[in-house]
Amino acid sequence: MKRIYNFSAGPAILPEAVLREAADEMLDYQDSGMSVMEMSHRSKIFQKIIDDAEKDLRTLLNVPDNYKILFLQGGATTQFSMIPMNLMKNKKADFILTGNWAVKAFEEASKYGTVNAIASSEDKMYSYIPDLKNLEISEDADYVHMVDNNTIFGTKFYELPDTKGKVLVNDASSCFLSEPMDVSKYGLIFAGAQKNVGPAGTVIVIIREDLIIKDHLPYTPIMLRYDIHAESKSMYNTPPTYGIYLCGKVFKWLLNLGGLEAIQKINIEKAGLLYDYLDQSKLFYGTVEKKSRSLMNVCFKSTSPEIDDKFIKEAKAQGFDNLKGYRTVGGMRASIYNAMPIEGIRALVKFMEVFEKENLK
Amino acid sequence: MKRIYNFSAGPAILPEAVLREAADEMLDYQDSGMSVMEMSHRSKIFQKIIDDAEKDLRTLLNVPDNYKILFLQGGATTQFSMIPMNLMKNKKADFILTGNWAVKAFEEASKYGTVNAIASSEDKMYSYIPDLKNLEISEDADYVHMVDNNTIFGTKFYELPDTKGKVLVNDASSCFLSEPMDVSKYGLIFAGAQKNVGPAGTVIVIIREDLIIKDHLPYTPIMLRYDIHAESKSMYNTPPTYGIYLCGKVFKWLLNLGGLEAIQKINIEKAGLLYDYLDQSKLFYGTVEKKSRSLMNVCFKSTSPEIDDKFIKEAKAQGFDNLKGYRTVGGMRASIYNAMPIEGIRALVKFMEVFEKENLK
Repeated sequence: MKRIYNFSAGPAILPEAVLREAADEMLDYQDSGMSVMEMSHRSKIFQKIIDDAEKDLRTLLNVPDNYKILFLQGGATTQFSMIPMNLMKNKKADFILTGNWAVKAFEEASKYGTVNAIASSEDKMYSYIPDLKNLEISEDADYVHMVDNNTIFGTKFYELPDTKGKVLVNDASSCFLSEPMDVSKYGLIFAGAQKNVGPAGTVIVIIREDLIIKDHLPYTPIMLRYDIHAESKSMYNTPPTYGIYLCGKVFKWLLNLGGLEAIQKINIEKAGLLYDYLDQSKLFYGTVEKKSRSLMNVCFKSTSPEIDDKFIKEAKAQGFDNLKGYRTVGGMRASIYNAMPIEGIRALVKFMEVFEKENLK
Repeated sequence: MKRIYNFSAGPAILPEAVLREAADEMLDYQDSGMSVMEMSHRSKIFQKIIDDAEKDLRTLLNVPDNYKILFLQGGATTQFSMIPMNLMKNKKADFILTGNWAVKAFEEASKYGTVNAIASSEDKMYSYIPDLKNLEISEDADYVHMVDNNTIFGTKFYELPDTKGKVLVNDASSCFLSEPMDVSKYGLIFAGAQKNVGPAGTVIVIIREDLIIKDHLPYTPIMLRYDIHAESKSMYNTPPTYGIYLCGKVFKWLLNLGGLEAIQKINIEKAGLLYDYLDQSKLFYGTVEKKSRSLMNVCFKSTSPEIDDKFIKEAKAQGFDNLKGYRTVGGMRASIYNAMPIEGIRALVKFMEVFEKENLK
C-alpha cells in the first residue's frame, strides 16, 4: 500500500488511523453486521454515532450550552445563502473581504439585503488581513461576516474585529479545529468538513440559540432553516451519515492527541518549519505578509513561473502531491492541515533545499 | 466478520462487493497514495471517477443526450424547494399525492406558487395508486409531480399519468435503478442515493436541458439553481466526492449484473417470493392493493400488533433487521432494494413460515 504526502487544499488529507478504522469497519460496524452507510439514521446505533460526534466536538471546542451544533449538507456555499435568509432581520450585513470565499458570501448575501464591505485586502491580492481597528460597522447590521483562514491566499486572522456588539459570523472552513477557539465570541461559526475534519458533503454549523428564529426571509427553503435543523437535531431528513461518522472519528483522534491546545502546538511547529525555510531561501519566498500567515495553507513562489512548474512536477514525482497554487494565484501552496504529519513537512523542506541548490543560478 | 440481512428503508443495504472494494481502496485508491475522500475534486483522478459515474448511469438508464445528470447535495428534501424555484414560471404545479413524500413536496411547493392535488390515495391510507385516467391537469401547470415508489406505504406506479403535455417530475428515490425507465417521458427525475444507489448525502438529478433556465424565482439560493450546477458539471462547489465514488461503484455493479433488465427480473422474483407467501399466509397479510404493490418496500401486518412486535423482535434475533414498519403505519416493512440478495428473501420467508406455525392459533 502506497501513501503520499498530500498537500491538497480540500478535500484533503485525513488521519491515516481514521482511514484504517473506517476500512476495518466498512462491512461490519461494531458487530452490527452493517456498514455505517447502510444504517437507518433513525436507529439507536447511528444515534449514538451522531450523539458522540456532537459531544466530542463540544468537548474539543468547549462549546457553551447556549449554542447548537448542526451537521448539515450543501457545503459552506449553502451557508452563504442560509445565513442571510435566517439572520437578516434589518436586511443589512457587513463583510470583511479577505479573499474569494468572503467575496462569494458577500455577493450571495447581496440578493437578500444591503451588504457593506467594511474592510478589504483586495488591493494587494488578499495577501494580508486588513486593519481591524475602528471598522465602520453599520448601525443596523444584522451581522459581520469574516473568513477566519483564507485557503486560497494563505492568510489568517490573529485577532478578531471589534463588531461593536453586532453578531460575528465566522467561516472557519479551512482552520476549524486547528487551534482553540472562543466560541462565545461568535454568533455563528460554520465549516465545510472537507478541509480539516472529514469528507466533503458535511458542513458543521455552531449557532447561538437566540439566532435560531422562525421569522425567515420569504421563500426560505425548508432545508435552509436553522430552526428546522435545530429542532430535529440535524435529522429533519436523512443527514450525511457516513460523513458524520468520519467527522466523529477525527474528533476522537484529536481528543486522543490532547485536544486543540496540543494540535495547535504541532501546527505552529509544522508551519514554522516551512516559513523559516522560506524566509532564508534564495529561490523561494512566502507570498503573504508575515503577521497574517496561515498555519494551514502556506503559499509561496520561486523566482520564476518556469521554476514553479518544474518544482511542482519534480515534487509530485517524489510523492509530494497537490502543491500547485490556486489557478488565479499561481505559484505553490502547501496545505498542511491537522492530518499532515510533521514528517511530511520535514521531508518537503529537505526536498526544497535540494531543489534550491540544483536550481539557484 | 458478521453480515446481517438488513431490510432498512434507507439508508439501506449496499452490495457487499462494493463495500469490499471501498474498504480495500480506503487508504490508497488505484496506487494514487490517497483515499478518494482525500482527493481534490479538481484533480484528474477524481474527474475520471465522476465522469465514469455519469457515463455508466447514462448507459444504465439510456439517458437521452438532451438530459443533464447532476450529482447534488441536500437530499430529496432540497429538491422539494429547488424544483418550484426553478420550474415555476406560471407559479402553478399539480401533485399526485401517494404518501408522505408527495405531501411534503406539495407543502413546500405551496410556498412558491399555487399547488393542486389532482389525485390522492389518502382516503385509504395511501395503500393504492389513484386512478391516473382523466386527471384534471391545470391548464397552466408548470409541471406535474409524482413519487414513483412510496417507501412508507409500499406502493408503486405501474403506468404513468397522462399529463396532457405538461412536464412530468418524478421523485424516484426509492425505486431508482430497480428497473428500466424511459427517461424521455419525464422533464426531471430525482433520487436520493441512500435507498438503492449509495450513501446518504448525494442526490441524483436528471433534467431535460430546456428546463434549465436562468430566470428563477426571486431569492433562489445559488446552490439551488440547476443552471449553476449544470454549467459547472456538478462542480460549482465541492461535491460529495466519496458518495459519488460509491454511486459509481454501484452503477458498475449493476452493469456487470446485466443492467436494469436483469435487476428488474431479479427484483420481480424477490418481491414475488414474499408476496406469494403473504397471499397464502393465515397469520400475515400484505397491506397494499395488489395492483399497486411496490417491488422495493413490502408492507405487511399480522393478525395483531402484539404478534407484529413479537415477530419483529424474533426476526431481529435471527439476523433479519429493520423490519419494523414506519412509525405512523405500524406493522412490518421489508425493504428489498437491489442489494438485498434473493437468499435474504428466501431465508425471511422460511423464518416467517416457522413463525406462522408457532403463532397461529
